Amino acid sequence: MTSYESFFSRDAHSFRASAIRVFAKLINDPKIISFAGGVPNPDTFPAERIAELAARVVREKRAVSLQYGPTRGLPRLCESIAKIMSERGVACTSDDVLTTTGSQQALDLIAHTILDPGDVVAVELPTYIGGSASFFARSATLVGVQQDDEGIVPESLREVASKTRIKLLYTIPNFQNPSGRLMTQQRRGAVLQLAEEFDFLVIEDDPYGELVYVDGADTTAMKSRDGQGRVLYLGSFSKVLAPGLRCGWIVAPPALLERLEIAKQAADLCSGMLDQSIVDELVANGELQPQIARVRDFYRGKRGILIEELEKHFTSHAHWTSADGGLFTFLTLNDNVDTASKVKEAVANGVAYIPGGPFFVDGSGANTMRLTFAKESDERIRTGVSRLAHVFGFDER
Amino acid sequence: MTSYESFFSRDAHSFRASAIRVFAKLINDPKIISFAGGVPNPDTFPAERIAELAARVVREKRAVSLQYGPTRGLPRLCESIAKIMSERGVACTSDDVLTTTGSQQALDLIAHTILDPGDVVAVELPTYIGGSASFFARSATLVGVQQDDEGIVPESLREVASKTRIKLLYTIPNFQNPSGRLMTQQRRGAVLQLAEEFDFLVIEDDPYGELVYVDGADTTAMKSRDGQGRVLYLGSFSKVLAPGLRCGWIVAPPALLERLEIAKQAADLCSGMLDQSIVDELVANGELQPQIARVRDFYRGKRGILIEELEKHFTSHAHWTSADGGLFTFLTLNDNVDTASKVKEAVANGVAYIPGGPFFVDGSGANTMRLTFAKESDERIRTGVSRLAHVFGFDER
Repeated sequence: MTSYESFFSRDAHSFRASAIRVFAKLINDPKIISFAGGVPNPDTFPAERIAELAARVVREKRAVSLQYGPTRGLPRLCESIAKIMSERGVACTSDDVLTTTGSQQALDLIAHTILDPGDVVAVELPTYIGGSASFFARSATLVGVQQDDEGIVPESLREVASKTRIKLLYTIPNFQNPSGRLMTQQRRGAVLQLAEEFDFLVIEDDPYGELVYVDGADTTAMKSRDGQGRVLYLGSFSKVLAPGLRCGWIVAPPALLERLEIAKQAADLCSGMLDQSIVDELVANGELQPQIARVRDFYRGKRGILIEELEKHFTSHAHWTSADGGLFTFLTLNDNVDTASKVKEAVANGVAYIPGGPFFVDGSGANTMRLTFAKESDERIRTGVSRLAHVFGFDER
Repeated sequence: MTSYESFFSRDAHSFRASAIRVFAKLINDPKIISFAGGVPNPDTFPAERIAELAARVVREKRAVSLQYGPTRGLPRLCESIAKIMSERGVACTSDDVLTTTGSQQALDLIAHTILDPGDVVAVELPTYIGGSASFFARSATLVGVQQDDEGIVPESLREVASKTRIKLLYTIPNFQNPSGRLMTQQRRGAVLQLAEEFDFLVIEDDPYGELVYVDGADTTAMKSRDGQGRVLYLGSFSKVLAPGLRCGWIVAPPALLERLEIAKQAADLCSGMLDQSIVDELVANGELQPQIARVRDFYRGKRGILIEELEKHFTSHAHWTSADGGLFTFLTLNDNVDTASKVKEAVANGVAYIPGGPFFVDGSGANTMRLTFAKESDERIRTGVSRLAHVFGFDER
């Protein structure tokens, strides 16, 4: 038989399978109360409207919805996305938009277009594993930048940039996965100044910006301050509509976008046209904002309960992020306990979480965990936190 | 402003935009009779069934059809694909299947996983431009292999393989795009022997194998002879169902498939789940074979008319492939006329075609053109060929 090792590309030797998928599988056993998921709750999907619109766009527009389409995306959808961008503080036209097969494809296209083996990508500590995966898949070198509750710590980014030539910074300023943190506007400005000073590009990944649960959270896109054209902004309908539709977008300077479009032509010709047609109708009908309001209401209560229960059981033993939006809170134990080593015991006790270590590219974070409030009922969230406290020996006495 | 040239990767400098998209745009003017398209006819899409099934899978299975799914693909769909493969002569299980966002993604994932800059890919003369694009996008070197009416010429492949280290051969044995040719089983065997002798892998791209219009055409997959595990087989529902659904697959040896799966995880996490759910229902209900029969009937007549008209107008001036299946015939003029230089005149005369040159990686083929019979009505096909003959000065006297 053929031996394949010699056929693999340099990149293929750098591919990293997701280190958390193994944990994510735990969410499918109904006996286990799961804080381990990373996906939205299906109850938030506007299924009835999607069903109606799917049937309609197929019956009435088959030559568009079922045919190959333009690589850039359905023209009217690109226009709608440009309008959405202006609501997020970014003035642009449909010419500045490239639709993608989810944000993950956007990350992959950018990595392909920008990164050579050994190029340095700065990522947050912790960061989204799918982002890291796209950069590792181009044989890039990843370096971590410290985060605090205001977002990226500028001094840490400056230190990294002074030591090594950063080509790309990857950040999720709004309610980051996994940390749940919101970067302040002041920090966003500081990060962009460093991008200019040290001449690197910035990926601003924003899947969670619409999922806000408190008043006064300023989610204005970093891209809105991008006078120098250094920011590639990624948006997505996955968390506000439904991720099965695989519909995301990039807004970037024209010279970059043109090249990304050619990369996409080779990557999949065009994104799913039925998916795009459904999203297009829904957005054009003005149904996105009411839908976002419903999704916020759905998660707001669950988030409140999770935080409340953490305060009850974990206050003397850990600290966690406020999760003013998005799907996650990130918990750090005061003691140096390796959360990965406790997963088995937790599952035996009927509760699951994602250990935080895999989100840190510098190998730190062993005493952290990511908790989502998206999946479970209010009652099960309460029971789940109580079980979790028991597993870590934090029972009330 | 930022200058981006220094940020582009080596690959990005090798990206090639499709050289035929500019011609394909001509198909949208109804005054022009177009043989220039490369896409299936929307009248072949089973739109009513897709509309019904879309609404049903969204209403009844939202937690699957609208949610993130497994990177490998919807499990039951993978099982159905394994059964389809056995009908094509390939014994496999769902474990051997990776679904992709259309076959184009399959090409891109394979190129990423196998090719380093400068690696040599052998392609047919002519070949599919989307295939070339995926290989160029990895900075590969493409070399052409001669084709005749039986498919790849083994002596030509041997000559190329003797001169240079081929890592990958890309072939479309069934009714190739653009040539319309069917490779004989004998030639398929010869190609695989050369793969073994010269130690290269083979991509067998098969989007057209089900579109057969004559009796006795043997489309059995090359993969069926693949005892050594050298063939990566690509299938697609785009031409028999609808390309807007972006649903293709790879069947490959497990050691390759595992690596491709990780590449896909980084590329788009999973293919569209609504698309997969619709195709899954349709195939599981036994609706694929009757649909294929309808599509064959639809194209068979059109193909007959195009060939008949070519015989009437072009017999003393050109030769063309028999197009016993697929969507295209490929025409070579006897004289050394540059078909690209005549496109403008043709369009002015109300007819469009794709000049063949861009399909040849060695710069040959200036006197060729690709004609599709997929788009136009029978009557317009007749008128179109007559116009085409006029443009090239082949009027009957």
